Amino acid sequence: MPCTDAIVIGAGPVGLFQVFQLGLQGLRVHVIDALPHPGGQCAELYGDKPLYDIPGIKACTGHELVQRLRAQIEPFAPTFHLGEQVSTLQAQPEGGFLVGTAQGTQLQARTVFIASGVGAFVPRTLKLPGLEAYEGGQLRYRLDEGTHLAGQRVVVHGGDEPAVQQAIACATAPEALRPARTTLQHRRDVFDAPPALLGQLQALRAAGRIEVAIGVASGIVEEQGRLAALELTTPEGTPLRLPLDLLLVRLGLVPRLGPIAEWGLQLERKQLVVDPATLATSTPGIHAVGDAITYPGKRKLILSGFHEATLAAFGAAEWLAGHKLPLEYTTSSERLQKLLGVAGN
Amino acid sequence: MPCTDAIVIGAGPVGLFQVFQLGLQGLRVHVIDALPHPGGQCAELYGDKPLYDIPGIKACTGHELVQRLRAQIEPFAPTFHLGEQVSTLQAQPEGGFLVGTAQGTQLQARTVFIASGVGAFVPRTLKLPGLEAYEGGQLRYRLDEGTHLAGQRVVVHGGDEPAVQQAIACATAPEALRPARTTLQHRRDVFDAPPALLGQLQALRAAGRIEVAIGVASGIVEEQGRLAALELTTPEGTPLRLPLDLLLVRLGLVPRLGPIAEWGLQLERKQLVVDPATLATSTPGIHAVGDAITYPGKRKLILSGFHEATLAAFGAAEWLAGHKLPLEYTTSSERLQKLLGVAGN
Repeated sequence: MPCTDAIVIGAGPVGLFQVFQLGLQGLRVHVIDALPHPGGQCAELYGDKPLYDIPGIKACTGHELVQRLRAQIEPFAPTFHLGEQVSTLQAQPEGGFLVGTAQGTQLQARTVFIASGVGAFVPRTLKLPGLEAYEGGQLRYRLDEGTHLAGQRVVVHGGDEPAVQQAIACATAPEALRPARTTLQHRRDVFDAPPALLGQLQALRAAGRIEVAIGVASGIVEEQGRLAALELTTPEGTPLRLPLDLLLVRLGLVPRLGPIAEWGLQLERKQLVVDPATLATSTPGIHAVGDAITYPGKRKLILSGFHEATLAAFGAAEWLAGHKLPLEYTTSSERLQKLLGVAGN
Repeated sequence: MPCTDAIVIGAGPVGLFQVFQLGLQGLRVHVIDALPHPGGQCAELYGDKPLYDIPGIKACTGHELVQRLRAQIEPFAPTFHLGEQVSTLQAQPEGGFLVGTAQGTQLQARTVFIASGVGAFVPRTLKLPGLEAYEGGQLRYRLDEGTHLAGQRVVVHGGDEPAVQQAIACATAPEALRPARTTLQHRRDVFDAPPALLGQLQALRAAGRIEVAIGVASGIVEEQGRLAALELTTPEGTPLRLPLDLLLVRLGLVPRLGPIAEWGLQLERKQLVVDPATLATSTPGIHAVGDAITYPGKRKLILSGFHEATLAAFGAAEWLAGHKLPLEYTTSSERLQKLLGVAGN
């Protein structure tokens, strides 16, 4: 089982900068994030919107900030476990922690850093009696590259951009990979997506390549252990059956604090209580930074998370060393410059 | 007398970002700095050295960081009082503060932000009995644009880059402005400056355009109320007189905490004690940020100062408003975007 110095939970901007600061302390890091790519909330919620209050950067989008941070942490070559949700954390009798993900990864580390923000971004689920059992089979919240769509009757559930985009992607796939039928199912015939996508949807509907089924999803039909159809109730109150082979639910992502709330760490209004000097939680060896935490004067700003990550790295490094550590500067310290791979510049 | 919302003492990176954060709070700012340009320690001590630990900026020199911050605060158009040293601060009976500089500027403001770092950077002085009386006349620590060098016997005192550079500048001035004689005086014939400058010095010495006088400055000679000569003791112990019209002392800059220590603010080991949640000093209305302060966990990093400036701006704005203020984001708040001049983007 991989054993490392530190595990950072969350690959948003604060988690990424946590990697940087731990790197400056000479610590090796593994990073876990529920999303399939780094960036977290910053990439999900304002990837293309400009931020104006990062010091020294007059304007940059969320995506740009994430790119900049990824470039900055390159010298420290962290190991990423993306598309994995942290589920368990156990203090080890011999010291350190064992962290497990829902996907089965197990990691051991001397310290843990929670940079999970408002929570793991996970797909919003469709709740219908009996449906859950089909997840990963005929029910998919994320389309893996290997999903076999060709010749299938596909129903896409949702009314916003992710659903519209998914229906268009199905209907315009190369012929050999295209579903036999693509149905976009939503409770009403109004879709919320950028005009260009809506225009494309319109054209594909007119061409008969996308069908639209309007109605509230109210149940499922099972036949011989298979998901046979989705049951709808139309706006007129009529029941409707939508036969299918594959149900792609595309309701967007929601943050979920998840299991972190159950690890016995001191919470205040669902936020982790930390010592602002070291960002230590109530469990020695576990630090927390960013939007998940609270302390007097806390502001939920990216800059705050950057500073917290810095103090947390010092706090953990001193805790591991058992004594105070001197402050060194990247402009003058040969040790830091070697770690950064810029010695002799 | 100009009355403003806030006075920021110190135009280093933290003082500049303090202006930005006060601007986001809708507050107008005057900035005072002892140096003739913004940048403080960052520009003076590592202007051309790379910094690697500013979040989102993989590498930039001190000068580049200062340029970036100046660009970022442009929308808030602060008023700069450069080349001025703060000397007095008085609480006003009607509230607010009166701040005065050694150069005679008087400003009134509702709040004061001390971002003075290790102190005001002032020229290191040459201490010889009776010399002080000539400062601003025949003795100069800074060359003003109007200083009349033409035809004068100029002695430059110092052995490092500023002195070497000054001697070269004198000797290579256009003929109409050139001193009659340029003498570089240092205690030994070893100069510490970049190779290119040393090469130039060598050439000018060989050409007889710069004379070098070696010896420890031990006294002055006065004649009819004028500074007539500098007295040296050569390495061999021989006394030497260096006749002069103008003495340019170029010993570099030293930080001086100065009068801030005498304003009755609570100090701990010469550092201002602040509430880390609001960066308020022991006097309501006066906040302090950056290297001049102490609180549990304080690290003397530029990033720490950036975060402190942010919390200080909130602290002061809430103190002025008399109630809590909501957190707004530059990505989404129209109010902030208007202040930044980017509304409608």
